[in-house]
Amino acid sequence: MATYAPPTRPHNPHLPFGDQQAAPFYGQDILSVKQFSPDDLTYIFGVAREMREMVLRVGTFDLLKGKILANLFYEPSTRTSSSFTAAMERLGGSVIPINEVIFSSVSKGESLPDTIRTLECYADVIVLRHPEVGASALAAQYARKPVINAGDGVGEHPTQALLDLFTIVSELGEIDGLTVTMLGDLKYGRTVHSLARLLSLYHVRLNYVSPDILRMPAEIIAELSARDIPQAEHPNLEPALADTDVLYVTRVQKERFEDPAQYESVKGAFVIDADTMQHAKQRMIVMHPLPRVGEISMEVDDDPRAAYFRQMECGLYVRMALLAMVLGKA
Amino acid sequence: MATYAPPTRPHNPHLPFGDQQAAPFYGQDILSVKQFSPDDLTYIFGVAREMREMVLRVGTFDLLKGKILANLFYEPSTRTSSSFTAAMERLGGSVIPINEVIFSSVSKGESLPDTIRTLECYADVIVLRHPEVGASALAAQYARKPVINAGDGVGEHPTQALLDLFTIVSELGEIDGLTVTMLGDLKYGRTVHSLARLLSLYHVRLNYVSPDILRMPAEIIAELSARDIPQAEHPNLEPALADTDVLYVTRVQKERFEDPAQYESVKGAFVIDADTMQHAKQRMIVMHPLPRVGEISMEVDDDPRAAYFRQMECGLYVRMALLAMVLGKA
Amino acid sequence: MATYAPPTRPHNPHLPFGDQQAAPFYGQDILSVKQFSPDDLTYIFGVAREMREMVLRVGTFDLLKGKILANLFYEPSTRTSSSFTAAMERLGGSVIPINEVIFSSVSKGESLPDTIRTLECYADVIVLRHPEVGASALAAQYARKPVINAGDGVGEHPTQALLDLFTIVSELGEIDGLTVTMLGDLKYGRTVHSLARLLSLYHVRLNYVSPDILRMPAEIIAELSARDIPQAEHPNLEPALADTDVLYVTRVQKERFEDPAQYESVKGAFVIDADTMQHAKQRMIVMHPLPRVGEISMEVDDDPRAAYFRQMECGLYVRMALLAMVLGKA
Repeated sequence: MATYAPPTRPHNPHLPFGDQQAAPFYGQDILSVKQFSPDDLTYIFGVAREMREMVLRVGTFDLLKGKILANLFYEPSTRTSSSFTAAMERLGGSVIPINEVIFSSVSKGESLPDTIRTLECYADVIVLRHPEVGASALAAQYARKPVINAGDGVGEHPTQALLDLFTIVSELGEIDGLTVTMLGDLKYGRTVHSLARLLSLYHVRLNYVSPDILRMPAEIIAELSARDIPQAEHPNLEPALADTDVLYVTRVQKERFEDPAQYESVKGAFVIDADTMQHAKQRMIVMHPLPRVGEISMEVDDDPRAAYFRQMECGLYVRMALLAMVLGKA
Repeated sequence: MATYAPPTRPHNPHLPFGDQQAAPFYGQDILSVKQFSPDDLTYIFGVAREMREMVLRVGTFDLLKGKILANLFYEPSTRTSSSFTAAMERLGGSVIPINEVIFSSVSKGESLPDTIRTLECYADVIVLRHPEVGASALAAQYARKPVINAGDGVGEHPTQALLDLFTIVSELGEIDGLTVTMLGDLKYGRTVHSLARLLSLYHVRLNYVSPDILRMPAEIIAELSARDIPQAEHPNLEPALADTDVLYVTRVQKERFEDPAQYESVKGAFVIDADTMQHAKQRMIVMHPLPRVGEISMEVDDDPRAAYFRQMECGLYVRMALLAMVLGKA
Repeated sequence: MATYAPPTRPHNPHLPFGDQQAAPFYGQDILSVKQFSPDDLTYIFGVAREMREMVLRVGTFDLLKGKILANLFYEPSTRTSSSFTAAMERLGGSVIPINEVIFSSVSKGESLPDTIRTLECYADVIVLRHPEVGASALAAQYARKPVINAGDGVGEHPTQALLDLFTIVSELGEIDGLTVTMLGDLKYGRTVHSLARLLSLYHVRLNYVSPDILRMPAEIIAELSARDIPQAEHPNLEPALADTDVLYVTRVQKERFEDPAQYESVKGAFVIDADTMQHAKQRMIVMHPLPRVGEISMEVDDDPRAAYFRQMECGLYVRMALLAMVLGKA
């Protein structure tokens, strides 16, 4: 995946040549945030905006009527699975839900390429969640139909990063000029890694606030430095909060600490509550990929700056956009 | 839940004001049998009757085309889950099935309010089955979209009680004047409790037939006495059978008895067979919420008075009616 | 099941009499390969061919719009379940997925007839996968709606046999005159048993290649001998390969051998690789019911004679044909 190259697809030989040229992303896979240029993002968000307008006005429409999505989840994720299901259904398409693969032919030892080549006999597009890094790229290598990566282990979760960025654009209008503060577990969170990479395509400042053992990997910091992105690390939120336009919160898991006492000593510093919000800008947003387990107090939910549930809604529009695009209907 | 008040909904701010006035139950939750007046029941059954006519005539129709139901089951219930799925599909709508929540973000510790606020980003109505009493009321408190209680622990299962009552009306025409005999486990069965409460809105007589340790709770008996409903308790069916118009059978579970010998000594008295039916009226019905495990002998199935499979079908029509109503389309 | 008689259905009293006469298989069950005549097979494959043309031309169409399939799987089978789901969705119908029956009312001890009589209140057709031989016949006995057997233990899996035969017809044009070689576990594989029975309706030659302990049952050999089908058994593929038109590969499971050393000594003889293909005809096909676990080397996948993924696609068309037929729309 480190050497990921933009796909040379569509490789579905059934697609008419003219159609393949007409629509960006038609027949392509969505595997990594690294495949997108700023122009791509502008295009995707434009389509996502149209999807939002259509949903708010008419609820669903028949853009993908007759198309079938195979929703293939090798590990459970109610949120992502439901979001893709809803996206397909709001576009008039149908879904083959495959959530219980742990019980199925997969557990009989079938290879991922065989499973993929079977499912593409039935479906028009495949969404894949898999615990192993690179699984989606492997699937895409064998599939004639488009594959969308819905998370491959500690690898990537590109649709999450796209919805995060779309939320920022929707809430604050522009990305250039923003100060984005990432808080919590920055070491293991694929979400913040992918988002940081996407943000590096714009003129932003990044703050990283985390316990010492959960700092942003040096590799990501180096990658963004090479793009001249100003970055600063802090052991707690206080020095970064006042200038923050986007506060992106993630969970600090107790299991990451060898010494429970160490966890207890730091955890309070990474909880957002009403008091935190008093020291934040009037015009800023708080985001979280959810699920949360205490990192943001429920008392913050009614604050208009709490954007995490609107963020969920943005996920629907971005996934509708991606499905429509890879199926040549956007 | 004891202090349940009729909802002041619709609180979905997107609903146009005029529409909210026009259609009864539009935007409302279905949480408890206590929220219904006799006029409400008459209205619901009228809509359910229309649904039956439409299904028998054309199978499905597009009343809820473009609407999405999130079918959220924290505990398995093939029957109820399938019934709501079919109801939504027969109305032209789509379903997000979430049956495996035990494996999902919920098991990562997410709160019910967060799960609900996420799902309502994708769906138009939420059906919730949950093992804890009051879960549906909690969900409804946070949801902007309508919530339908599909069973919350030993609490309520209002759509079951509504379909039970609709079955009685469909089979016997009138509720006033009927003698309803409830048989089996009357202590732990939320089904009989909810049905008894609904029946108390009419002029009926109630018989309770159960082993001594599984008698109808005093609280329910008191509640119905306050409404002047004649009630009688019996240790076996014989004295009540001849006058019974509706025999509502529930399962007597062995696990409820401390002494297995005690279970063996009584269980035979609570099994309905061909002999029982010989002593029943010619015009009466036998009901059961199903699944049954021996409480009604299969030899009764072909008796025209055996209404329990028709009861299942009534469940489809009542749930179609409720979905159409809360979505403002009835 | 041994005494299976052609169904005297349709027994759905709601079907108009004229309709029942008009369309073959309307209202009937699909339970066993024994119920089909050569004319039936010709008819089914004709409808399947139309389905393929429609899918390739327009993807989906609304032939079964408004119809609901209950997809009832008592044991997991991603492949078969997904295939029926896709078949119903490509015909414009809806699906009630019931994959988790192990957790459901069934596990509370409900009988199969009760489950079936409940589901037919919601659905128009029932697809049943069950671990016990004869389960589908039992279900069909109680159901008013058509039941399709999707595998009942070591019993039958008729739609698999039909798709296998349809694949042969699609790939090679004619069945009469072909030499079909079945390879691997011929003792326990219900797939090869059903396929052998269907093939015996034509003028074919059969080779059976298997380890000694996994030979084709004498009962099947006798049944085909009575129909004058030439059959030959071989301990390895070599003598049969050169004349083979269809090589049907199945898995040899290590667990079938008491002595692991014995398994190790034979397993290599039952793996198909590029070298095997060099000794096969230019015009022949390799089939496998999938999933495979090493029986066919991945290096064979790009050989045009490798038909196993096209076989999966044939499964979609055959199942679409069967659903349309039993619902009177073919």
